[in-house]
Amino acid sequence: MAKQQKTAITPTREENYPEWYQQVVRAADLAENSDVRGCMVIKPWGYALWENIKAGLDGLFKATGHVNAYFPLFIPKSYLEKEAEHVDGFAKECAVVTHHRLEAGPDGGLVPAGELEEPLIVRPTSETIIGATYAKWVQSYRDLPILINQWANVVRWEMRTRLFLRTAEFLWQEGHTVHETEAEAWEETRKMLDVYKKFAEEYMAMPVLIGEKTAGERFPGAVSTLCIEAMMQDRKALQAGTSHFLGQNFAKASGITFQSREGREEVAWTTSWGVSTRLIGGMIMTHGDDDGMVMPPRLAPSHVVILPIIRKDTDREKIMAYCNETAEMLRTQTYAGRPVEVVVDGRDINAGEKGWGWVKKGIPIRIEIGPRDMESNSVFVARRDKGPKEKYGQSREEFAASVTSVLEEMQQLLFERACAFRAENTREIDSWDDFVQFFKAEGGGFALAHWDGTEETEQKINDELSVTIRCIPFDYEAGGEGTCIVSGRPSKGRVVFAKSY
Amino acid sequence: MAKQQKTAITPTREENYPEWYQQVVRAADLAENSDVRGCMVIKPWGYALWENIKAGLDGLFKATGHVNAYFPLFIPKSYLEKEAEHVDGFAKECAVVTHHRLEAGPDGGLVPAGELEEPLIVRPTSETIIGATYAKWVQSYRDLPILINQWANVVRWEMRTRLFLRTAEFLWQEGHTVHETEAEAWEETRKMLDVYKKFAEEYMAMPVLIGEKTAGERFPGAVSTLCIEAMMQDRKALQAGTSHFLGQNFAKASGITFQSREGREEVAWTTSWGVSTRLIGGMIMTHGDDDGMVMPPRLAPSHVVILPIIRKDTDREKIMAYCNETAEMLRTQTYAGRPVEVVVDGRDINAGEKGWGWVKKGIPIRIEIGPRDMESNSVFVARRDKGPKEKYGQSREEFAASVTSVLEEMQQLLFERACAFRAENTREIDSWDDFVQFFKAEGGGFALAHWDGTEETEQKINDELSVTIRCIPFDYEAGGEGTCIVSGRPSKGRVVFAKSY
Repeated sequence: MAKQQKTAITPTREENYPEWYQQVVRAADLAENSDVRGCMVIKPWGYALWENIKAGLDGLFKATGHVNAYFPLFIPKSYLEKEAEHVDGFAKECAVVTHHRLEAGPDGGLVPAGELEEPLIVRPTSETIIGATYAKWVQSYRDLPILINQWANVVRWEMRTRLFLRTAEFLWQEGHTVHETEAEAWEETRKMLDVYKKFAEEYMAMPVLIGEKTAGERFPGAVSTLCIEAMMQDRKALQAGTSHFLGQNFAKASGITFQSREGREEVAWTTSWGVSTRLIGGMIMTHGDDDGMVMPPRLAPSHVVILPIIRKDTDREKIMAYCNETAEMLRTQTYAGRPVEVVVDGRDINAGEKGWGWVKKGIPIRIEIGPRDMESNSVFVARRDKGPKEKYGQSREEFAASVTSVLEEMQQLLFERACAFRAENTREIDSWDDFVQFFKAEGGGFALAHWDGTEETEQKINDELSVTIRCIPFDYEAGGEGTCIVSGRPSKGRVVFAKSY
Repeated sequence: MAKQQKTAITPTREENYPEWYQQVVRAADLAENSDVRGCMVIKPWGYALWENIKAGLDGLFKATGHVNAYFPLFIPKSYLEKEAEHVDGFAKECAVVTHHRLEAGPDGGLVPAGELEEPLIVRPTSETIIGATYAKWVQSYRDLPILINQWANVVRWEMRTRLFLRTAEFLWQEGHTVHETEAEAWEETRKMLDVYKKFAEEYMAMPVLIGEKTAGERFPGAVSTLCIEAMMQDRKALQAGTSHFLGQNFAKASGITFQSREGREEVAWTTSWGVSTRLIGGMIMTHGDDDGMVMPPRLAPSHVVILPIIRKDTDREKIMAYCNETAEMLRTQTYAGRPVEVVVDGRDINAGEKGWGWVKKGIPIRIEIGPRDMESNSVFVARRDKGPKEKYGQSREEFAASVTSVLEEMQQLLFERACAFRAENTREIDSWDDFVQFFKAEGGGFALAHWDGTEETEQKINDELSVTIRCIPFDYEAGGEGTCIVSGRPSKGRVVFAKSY
C-alpha cells in the first residue's frame, strides 16, 4: 500500500519543529551543508532570495545617506586585542590564518609553510579593522559623519550550526559610522534599528519588537545594543538584527580622534549595525507551513509559476505558446519596484511532482494552463497562502489585471497572520508560578514581566528555564511599575522574556 | 613663489607611469592599502564603480541563462590536492587556516589554539569546493547543464601587490558550469568570453583582443584558457578576464559523473570563468589622464556634478534651490538603464579645490551654476573628456534635453580613442631585430609576429625581453603562414606579443 502523505513536509511543525525546519530548507532548495564544517552552500533559489533582501536593505541604507565600501577579510591579531571586551567575545570562535603557503611535507603530502609573523583572524565582525582605517580618514569635524556600510562574509567558529540560523561562515551587512557627538551617534543607532524594523515588517512581513538588550546580551565592546526580535512559530524568539551604540570604546581603541569645531582634539563616537543571512531562517520560521516555504511576495525570487498541463504531445507547442504569452502579459506589470517575475516551467516531468515542487519552494502564485483553459482563455490559479487544493479559475485578462493587487494582499495577509500569532502567544505575567507554567506547560511565547534589573535574577531565570530577556522595550516604563516575579523587588516596567534561537 | 602645477596628477603618465597610476587611485579616492599586507580598502567611490560593474555583468550573465549561488570561503586542503596541476598552481600563494580560536599564551598575549585536524585554505578560486557539491547534485543528464555564477572574495598571497591590479584579497565573480558534452562545454567557454568582450568594450569602453593562451599561461588544471587582453596607456597588456575549458579534469577529480541518455555512467565536462576588481585597474589605465580618473559614463558612479558658485552668503539659498531643481530635471532622464545620477556639491570649501576634486574623480560632466547663470536660466558645462578649462554655457533646458546623448557620445569617444591608441601601437613584425627594436627602443605595444609554437621559443623571448605571448587569436591562421622570428621554423599564423601586467 502506498504511503499516505498528508503534507509535503515530514515531520510537520507540530511533530518536530527543528526537523521540520531542516526539511523545509532542503525541500525548498534554499541551502545545504557543505563538506566544510559549519559552512553552508546557498543554492540558487536561496541566493535569489538573499539578492532581493540585499536590494531592499541597500535601498533603505542609501535612502538614509549611507554608501558602501569594502574592507579586508583579515584582521591582525593585535587589532582584535585592542578592545578588551571585544576580543574576549570573539577569541573563542575565530578562524586563524597562520601560514601563507603549502609545501611538500616529509610524507609527501602538503603541509602549511611560510608562517606569518602575526596571525590573521578571518573577520568575525569588522569594528577593529575598519576603525584602523577610519583613524586615518578622520582628522577634523569636517570629515564627519562617516556613514559606510559593507556587504561581506564573516566567520564565527560556532560549534553547533544550523542552516541560515547559525553557521560558521555567513553573509551579512555591517554598517560602521563615526560621529562628532554622542547625541548624533545615538540618533544613528536608533535610526538604523528603525530601518531594520521597517524592512522586517514591510518586506519580510515579519513583525518585530524593538528594544535594548540587557548588559549580559550586549555586543562585546558596545555601550548599548538595540535589537529587533521576532517570534517564530515554535514561539521562540529570533534576534533578527542589532544596532550598537559603541560610545567612544572603539574610537579610543582605534584612535579615531578629530579636531572639533572649537579646535580641541576629541575622541569620536561610533556605531555599528548588522543583519545577516539569518533573516532567511526567520522568514522560513515565520511563514513556512507543513507544505514548505512560503515566500512573502515582496522578496520572492519569482512571483508566479506557470505550469502547462500537456496531456497530448500534439498540444505541446500551442499550450507552451499560450503560456509564454501569458508570462509576457504578467511581466509588463510592476510589483514592489520590479517587474512581476514569472517562470514558465515546461519541464517534461510528472505534473503532480512539478506542482508540489513549487509549493515547497513557496512561490506566491501557481497557475495551471491546460487545453481547456486555453480554449476558454482562462487560467487556473492557486495561491500559496491558501490550502494547496484551493484553486480557482479566472479569465486570463482578469488575472493579469489583478496580479499585483493579489500579491500585495498576500503580503499583507502574511504580516497580519504573523502579528496575530505573536499576539496570541504574548502574555503579561505577574507571578513566578504563572511564568513557569507559561514556559513549561503552555508552550511559552513572549512573557511580559517585571524584572528587578539585576544580572543575578536574569541568570537565575535562564538557569531554571532557559528563558532570557529578549529586550527591554523603549517604552517599558509606560506600562507602569511592579514587582519582580523572582525577587519581589521593585521594577519600573515589564521586559520581554522568551526562549530563543 | 607658489609651485606651478600643470596637471592635477604628479607625476604625469609620461614621467612615471606606475607612480602616476598610484596617484590617480589615491586622488580619485578609489582605494587605498590597508594595514593588512596586500589587502586593499575599496573606498566608496571605487566601490560604487564596482557595484555598477557587478550590475552590468550580472545582467549579461542572467541574460545568458546563469543564476547566482554561494559556496564556502574555505577549501579543505585535501580538496585542493585532488587536481595535481591545480594545487601546484596555487600552493605557493594561499592563506592557510590552522586553528579555530585564540587562547591566553604563556606571556599573557593570545595565541592560536584549537588546531584543525585538516588545514583549510581560504579559496584562491573555487573549482574544487564547488566541484564537490556538484558531484552530489549531478546524477543524470537531466540535471545538466548547471550554469551557476558566484560573486565572492578570494585570496592569493601575492608578494608584490598593486591596488586593483594584484592584491592578496580581491573581489570577483567566478562562473562554474557543468555540461553533458564536450561541445556544449566548449560553446559555454567561448560564449562567456564573448560576454566579457562585450562588457569590456560596450560598458568599460576598453577594446580587447580575444584568443587562446599558450600552454604555459593556462589556468592550472585547465585544458584551454581563453582570454580578453587590453592595451594600457604604457602599451603593456592587461589580462582582463579568462574563460577556461576544463575538459573532464576537474569533473574526474571531484567525481562529477552522470547517467547519460543512453544509460551509461559518464564523466561530465566543466568550465569556469572570471573577472575581478582588476577591471577597475584596467579602466584607470585605459582612460585616465594627467588630471586623474576618467569614468566611462555607462559605469560612472555619478554622471553629473552640480557645483554652485556662491559669492555672497545671501545668494546661497536661491542658488542651492536652483541647483537642486536642475538636479531633479536631470534625474528624470534615463541613461544606460538607470536614472541620470546627479550630485549637488554644496560643501563650503574652496571652489577651485572642489572642482578639481571632481575632475580627479573622473565624473563625466561638471556643471557650474552661479548667480548670473541662474538669472539667464543657463548652466556652465565642462566635459571630462575635454581639457579641464574647455567649458561652455548652455540654456538649462537645452542641457537637460541633451544630457543622455552627451553621455553616450562621451562613452563612444572614449572607446574610439582607446581603439585608436591600440591601433597606433600594434605592429606586424617579421624579424627578431625589429622585434627587439620595437620593445627596446620604440616603446613597445602589441607585436603581431610568427612563432614556431614551442615553449622553448616562448621562454627565450620572455627571458630576453620580458615579453610574453598574450594570446593566439582564434583566426590567427587567416593572416597566412610565415616563419618564426626566433627560430625561423614554420608558423601557421601571427600571435600577439607584449609586455604585460
